[in-house]
Amino acid sequence: MGTSAGVPTRSRNVAGIALSLPQRGEWWLFDCGEGTQHRILRSHLSLGQLTRIFITHLHGDHIFGLPGLLATGNLAAGNRRTHVYGPAGLEHYLRASRQHTEAESSLPVEVHSTQSGEIFADDGFIVDCLPLKHRVPTFGYRVTERDHPGRFRVEEAVRLGIPEGPLYGKLKRGETITLPDNRQIDGVLLSEPVQAGRKFVYCSDTTLCDTAIELARDADVLVHEATFAKKDEELARRSQHSTATMAAQVALEAKAQSLILTHISPRYTPGSATTPDDLLTEARAIFPHTELARDLLSVEVARRERSA
Amino acid sequence: MGTSAGVPTRSRNVAGIALSLPQRGEWWLFDCGEGTQHRILRSHLSLGQLTRIFITHLHGDHIFGLPGLLATGNLAAGNRRTHVYGPAGLEHYLRASRQHTEAESSLPVEVHSTQSGEIFADDGFIVDCLPLKHRVPTFGYRVTERDHPGRFRVEEAVRLGIPEGPLYGKLKRGETITLPDNRQIDGVLLSEPVQAGRKFVYCSDTTLCDTAIELARDADVLVHEATFAKKDEELARRSQHSTATMAAQVALEAKAQSLILTHISPRYTPGSATTPDDLLTEARAIFPHTELARDLLSVEVARRERSA
Repeated sequence: MGTSAGVPTRSRNVAGIALSLPQRGEWWLFDCGEGTQHRILRSHLSLGQLTRIFITHLHGDHIFGLPGLLATGNLAAGNRRTHVYGPAGLEHYLRASRQHTEAESSLPVEVHSTQSGEIFADDGFIVDCLPLKHRVPTFGYRVTERDHPGRFRVEEAVRLGIPEGPLYGKLKRGETITLPDNRQIDGVLLSEPVQAGRKFVYCSDTTLCDTAIELARDADVLVHEATFAKKDEELARRSQHSTATMAAQVALEAKAQSLILTHISPRYTPGSATTPDDLLTEARAIFPHTELARDLLSVEVARRERSA
Repeated sequence: MGTSAGVPTRSRNVAGIALSLPQRGEWWLFDCGEGTQHRILRSHLSLGQLTRIFITHLHGDHIFGLPGLLATGNLAAGNRRTHVYGPAGLEHYLRASRQHTEAESSLPVEVHSTQSGEIFADDGFIVDCLPLKHRVPTFGYRVTERDHPGRFRVEEAVRLGIPEGPLYGKLKRGETITLPDNRQIDGVLLSEPVQAGRKFVYCSDTTLCDTAIELARDADVLVHEATFAKKDEELARRSQHSTATMAAQVALEAKAQSLILTHISPRYTPGSATTPDDLLTEARAIFPHTELARDLLSVEVARRERSA
């Protein structure tokens, strides 16, 4: 939804990332800079299917779109409850925004104060977070999809002449059974491979830190801020942001599958001395599987097959 | 900057109007819905020249762009002070927005609590306001440009043989003098016509009310909300908004020179049963000098010549 740092530009809006979960008919939002709802209008996403919002930290370029988005979402979606997660202070900020606006448009929002560790889990996903290293309390978020057991090939069980009933349950759980005719059947072989859950990790804003690496361990997709180029590393350290090189180092050490750079300083534009593409080149020298985010870029998180 | 009511659409953003004062090298903003700063990026205006912001009322679609705009403006303009005028509660809203964001980007903003009557005056302009009729305290704003005295035609005075000195001052003030040779000279005739000051009036949000008419009296341009079509008048009355017909009635009774309709409900889109152009037709039946606002529409407020 937005890939610029601090202020919007004509091509990049401030921070916002949508995680689409089509199998659930819903999507989640990470950060919500001003104008995020305007970007959503230009995407294929609908506010009526937004169920959870995760805020990394309470800087304006990550939260100033939240009151408006929640107000519009409320108008759009009636009484559906939206869960918002973020550092302490978020609830007060939202309450103050609504206090002076309109009581009747107060929306059913549940605000959860983010702590290190697991903050959400259901039968499909776990969300946990760790503190990053920025000027204010900031959390990186990790979404871990649970593994899906492979489909039990019932047609194969029938072909083998296994009688229906409790034996099927044992086979589905991967146990080995013995048939009346003494044949031994390994349940694992009767199931398709486990569909490994995927990991999405979002680290912004932060300078290089161990917790980012820990959070990003084995991620399928790591979205990491890269506010500055390496030549401006001093600026990055002073403002507690990352260079593209730092982002690549995190991805490399965490053994992530892929890296997407976002939160690009508006000082780098096509045509300036250093461009966003230079940040990409810089990161790829360290971690080749890197892409540069642009607003409304859509990336599919591919499944990796794992044996059971 | 924005011409939609309540929520942004793909073509219309929420409320915001810029009043450009090129002779002063500055501009003023009326209302600041979310995404106003994004619209400014697509205009010819620069945040560095924005000096005063007037807020009609504390509904989200009129103020949620303010914290972000002020933060960006601060980054853009250094220590210039910005004056913000609006109903009581505005200062608390802005303080709460900034409290949880970033102390170091706290900007030199002076917030003025709007009361009926004159709220600003200098040698060029007077700004005053009156309460409108909406669900929360709401003010309409009127900007009155002071008359400019016509240029004193010094070359004509020289031609008439008037000696330089204190007589010139009297003539400039429009007095009649008597020369040593008994000729009487009327100063008014030695000056070009007075440049009449222009009046810009902004009424939003409101349903039909006498104060809107009073404020709009003799306005050169009246920008008035027209959230609904006449056929939805019941909705307008219930939500204390105006129909296009009501806006036209205000312009007619106030003897305004021209009317611009804004704050159009997103229910009316090109292609729907009732379109924004239908609102325009409805208003023009009553007040022909009506235009329909669209985002980034620019209208020059023409000068009317008045004799001294």
